[in-house]
Amino acid sequence: MKPKLSIIKIGGNIIEEQESLSQFLRLFAQLGGNKVLVHGGGKRATEIGKRIGIESKMVDGRRITDAKSLEVAVMVYAGLVNKNIVAQLQGNNCNSIGLSGADANAIIAVKRPVSTIDFGFVGDVRVVNAESISKLLNAEFVPVFCALTHDGHGQLLNTNADTIASEVAIALSQTYDTTLYYCFEKKGVLRTIAEPDSVIKRINMESYQKLKQQKIIADGMLPKLENCFHALNKHVQRVCIGDLSMLEPKAQLFTTITL
Amino acid sequence: MKPKLSIIKIGGNIIEEQESLSQFLRLFAQLGGNKVLVHGGGKRATEIGKRIGIESKMVDGRRITDAKSLEVAVMVYAGLVNKNIVAQLQGNNCNSIGLSGADANAIIAVKRPVSTIDFGFVGDVRVVNAESISKLLNAEFVPVFCALTHDGHGQLLNTNADTIASEVAIALSQTYDTTLYYCFEKKGVLRTIAEPDSVIKRINMESYQKLKQQKIIADGMLPKLENCFHALNKHVQRVCIGDLSMLEPKAQLFTTITL
Repeated sequence: MKPKLSIIKIGGNIIEEQESLSQFLRLFAQLGGNKVLVHGGGKRATEIGKRIGIESKMVDGRRITDAKSLEVAVMVYAGLVNKNIVAQLQGNNCNSIGLSGADANAIIAVKRPVSTIDFGFVGDVRVVNAESISKLLNAEFVPVFCALTHDGHGQLLNTNADTIASEVAIALSQTYDTTLYYCFEKKGVLRTIAEPDSVIKRINMESYQKLKQQKIIADGMLPKLENCFHALNKHVQRVCIGDLSMLEPKAQLFTTITL
Repeated sequence: MKPKLSIIKIGGNIIEEQESLSQFLRLFAQLGGNKVLVHGGGKRATEIGKRIGIESKMVDGRRITDAKSLEVAVMVYAGLVNKNIVAQLQGNNCNSIGLSGADANAIIAVKRPVSTIDFGFVGDVRVVNAESISKLLNAEFVPVFCALTHDGHGQLLNTNADTIASEVAIALSQTYDTTLYYCFEKKGVLRTIAEPDSVIKRINMESYQKLKQQKIIADGMLPKLENCFHALNKHVQRVCIGDLSMLEPKAQLFTTITL
């Protein structure tokens, strides 16, 4: 039987509020078995970028990462956010180690090719180095990934944190019985946005198609769900979506996604 | 016989010039045996702090690290500088892993007590976790430390990079035959500052006392040399001071310090 592994991705809202972050990190530290944390950067990068005089550039509603924006992302994601999370986890007796995809050569990406839009220093994941990450897990470290990868030739790249979480989960699911958790501000995938407790407890491929047709799942939830099914199709055992209470030992109200 | 370990500290001038940094990293990547890199932050922190609107505070000529300055240090040292070094080393086929003292619980410090001056978030090293660092070395990773430690309770602290290098060397010298290299812009400890080739090739405790009396060693070199002898007294096998050519296979012009 494969050993168990939990990969947990936390989003912006949890990172931005010191109290919810502390609460999350306490729960994460208590979680048994092998575990990996993946975090986004939240609005800190935009805020600090502005203070340095670097405005986020958007083309057709999509963020462009030029050289200066990448510097800010590296400072905020790999520096400020990652190291504060690691220090707090150590304070909770969780022996964490903060990583970008360059560290331990963990995640190799390619700079997204220029088509109609030049996204700049944005990386699409090519290889997750499961061997390197397993070495760290075997040495009883808890890897904490920020949303940066590298191209293997010295260039750091900005990469979507949801994608990093799913790709790491996919790569490690060969060795581990892997559960992927997407932890955000809502209690799960909601039937009615205005009702925070209207959590759809189970979604599979079939019900997902119906929920899409009925427009119950729409907008920002669509790429998130696509990511989940991609992971499941690539042999990740379970994917769960919910708020931080999902990590509590007796959690019940969250969404479990299966094929 | 203990396995060999090289601990190399690079200073500001090497980091600030992209070409000398690249040259250094190529030499470092080629170095055989176990190795650890320790880097300072250079002037980038001051420069970026200014752009964010945070001026370095000095009291009696000594830098004070308030909460905002610490944020900048974490962003620049652990983020910008550390991750770019790691990505470049990966580009040179050196499987590095970037660390603050919080990562892997590697370096625990205490916030310097307030006496006449409150230095703020500055840490004095208490414990180097040789076991954690050895685990990484055994897994064939190359640790790259920035000049940050933590207090074990969630607080990051700013710590002198020379001290980090010597304390890590001391802790690891129990398991490894350890050489500590201080790599900076000069070819070694100079007899005459104006003559860059006037390197004093060997210094021991006795000659150091004379060189001090003769004021040949003075100012900024004094704490550096004190650090070296502290390391030697605590069983680090060798300490060398020189510029980056010191890492070349046939290097001859640098200073070796012994007891």
